Amino acid sequence: MMDHSEIVARVDSFISDLLNGNLDVYKASMHLVSAGGKRLRPLLTVRFYESLGGRAEDIIEAAAAVELVHNFTLVHDDIMDNDDYRRGVPTVHRVYGQPKAILAGDLLFAEAYKALSMSRVLNRDPERFLRSSMALTNNVILICEGQEMDITPPSKFNENFYYELIRRKTSALFIASATIGVYASGKYEYENAARAYGDGLGVAFQIVDDLLGIVGDAKETGKPVGSDLREGKRTLPISMAINLADEELKKMILEVYGKPSSDGKMQDIVSRIKSIGLEDKVLKIARKYADSALKSLEMIPESDSKRSLEELVELAIRRKK
Amino acid sequence: MMDHSEIVARVDSFISDLLNGNLDVYKASMHLVSAGGKRLRPLLTVRFYESLGGRAEDIIEAAAAVELVHNFTLVHDDIMDNDDYRRGVPTVHRVYGQPKAILAGDLLFAEAYKALSMSRVLNRDPERFLRSSMALTNNVILICEGQEMDITPPSKFNENFYYELIRRKTSALFIASATIGVYASGKYEYENAARAYGDGLGVAFQIVDDLLGIVGDAKETGKPVGSDLREGKRTLPISMAINLADEELKKMILEVYGKPSSDGKMQDIVSRIKSIGLEDKVLKIARKYADSALKSLEMIPESDSKRSLEELVELAIRRKK
Repeated sequence: MMDHSEIVARVDSFISDLLNGNLDVYKASMHLVSAGGKRLRPLLTVRFYESLGGRAEDIIEAAAAVELVHNFTLVHDDIMDNDDYRRGVPTVHRVYGQPKAILAGDLLFAEAYKALSMSRVLNRDPERFLRSSMALTNNVILICEGQEMDITPPSKFNENFYYELIRRKTSALFIASATIGVYASGKYEYENAARAYGDGLGVAFQIVDDLLGIVGDAKETGKPVGSDLREGKRTLPISMAINLADEELKKMILEVYGKPSSDGKMQDIVSRIKSIGLEDKVLKIARKYADSALKSLEMIPESDSKRSLEELVELAIRRKK
Repeated sequence: MMDHSEIVARVDSFISDLLNGNLDVYKASMHLVSAGGKRLRPLLTVRFYESLGGRAEDIIEAAAAVELVHNFTLVHDDIMDNDDYRRGVPTVHRVYGQPKAILAGDLLFAEAYKALSMSRVLNRDPERFLRSSMALTNNVILICEGQEMDITPPSKFNENFYYELIRRKTSALFIASATIGVYASGKYEYENAARAYGDGLGVAFQIVDDLLGIVGDAKETGKPVGSDLREGKRTLPISMAINLADEELKKMILEVYGKPSSDGKMQDIVSRIKSIGLEDKVLKIARKYADSALKSLEMIPESDSKRSLEELVELAIRRKK
């Protein structure tokens, strides 16, 4: 099993070489990639491939492809949402202007397919390539649908809508990342296990993300305290916080919801939300999806790589940022 | 050989079904497609496939894929260039706003790969699919480079730069369209012929396009008289017009170049440019590329479809819009 840090180093080095063009659009497309990130999605591809008998060094290009798609969606989402910072640095459109940011996203998307087609393990068996390419494509279509749902949500929070949204915006790429690892191995009988894992992990990951959007420590997350409340996001944890709150706290939350307010005031509200036990209740729900991700791994043979996939689920739940 | 109108109808009907989603982003992605267009690129795919023994009805999905990529690039280019009209209708971002226009472009791009993967003739032989997918991908990378060159051109007109630019912005997708027709046939030995045809046709087509950008009849092109002069574009025909002009005309051209001016004044300048023989000189250059496109077809067996490819070259040169 290849070390996580070694996988990240190889994926990053492959992407740097791929995007090493003279034109400015290459620099713009590297901007967000260089700013870091967890590289969780390429890790899924590598670990599934390893679990089914493959060697990590043979799947780096395909792992890079899912990371490129992830970065493409972030660059375009930041334009649409008019966000100024991502991964602790100014967003691409803030640095390079909007036209080049649109272009940088388009390039990242195209380069993802290029990375996929450069994968020897995929292109020496075009059936594996076809399946992987379709996984990438279907995922991007779902992400586009998810982003549309995100920019035009229903006026009232709706739990079904929330799950539909996060399955598109988060789980879809987790599923693509995991299934590409399976397709590359040629052991297509594990496809459904990878799908179930990606779905469960994705939903758990996003629910925790949305929890951190309320109670996350600003020093850990790099975002202002109570950031999702300030932005007036419609997430499950926010809806649960409002439902759990007594009349006084509910009034306080709605007062700051979607509006700018002082850190002190927000910190007070966040502390009160913590004291009514929101974290436990949200984590219980995330745990359910995490368990379903773990269960889906049962049919996969025991190995260090499988253990790493199990650990990833625990990390997704326990993370503070 | 399938009729041109029948090909257009089938491609359009396939795209309508593909983009028939409930969400607004599907409507936004159909906006430009529904507004018309020549459907020249899908025609190249079909005619090459037919020329090499295939039946048009088997290649519709792949032909739709290149049209989808074309529309994706137009939707995003119009945002970057801040254009208000395209194909006689308001641009996608004018109708749906910028976020959804970015998203609609992304969706069109992803759906292009989906269309490709739905092609039975390609996905029953994944080698053909792999080659076609790479053609699409490499072309989009070149288009992104071309668009970057277009939005940040050198301060002075440069002929090499112009050809590098139009090869990326126009020829690349013509090449992809033609080669996908070849790949789908499995007769890879015709790949270079298709590349040479796409390159020659693309350059000729774009040079004529840029000529019409000066001397085109507003009633035919749907653009204001002398539109590229008004926009201050840096094209070969504009550079040639300035070089051919006497001091008086040159001064008149530079006075309106990149500035708003009255139709009457512009019409006078355009008439003078016509009288110095710009059209003949530009068409002579376009003819050279058209001839090279025709020559590349020599090795292709005689057929009605080959004749149609030859006619397309003549149409690209002779067109008034």
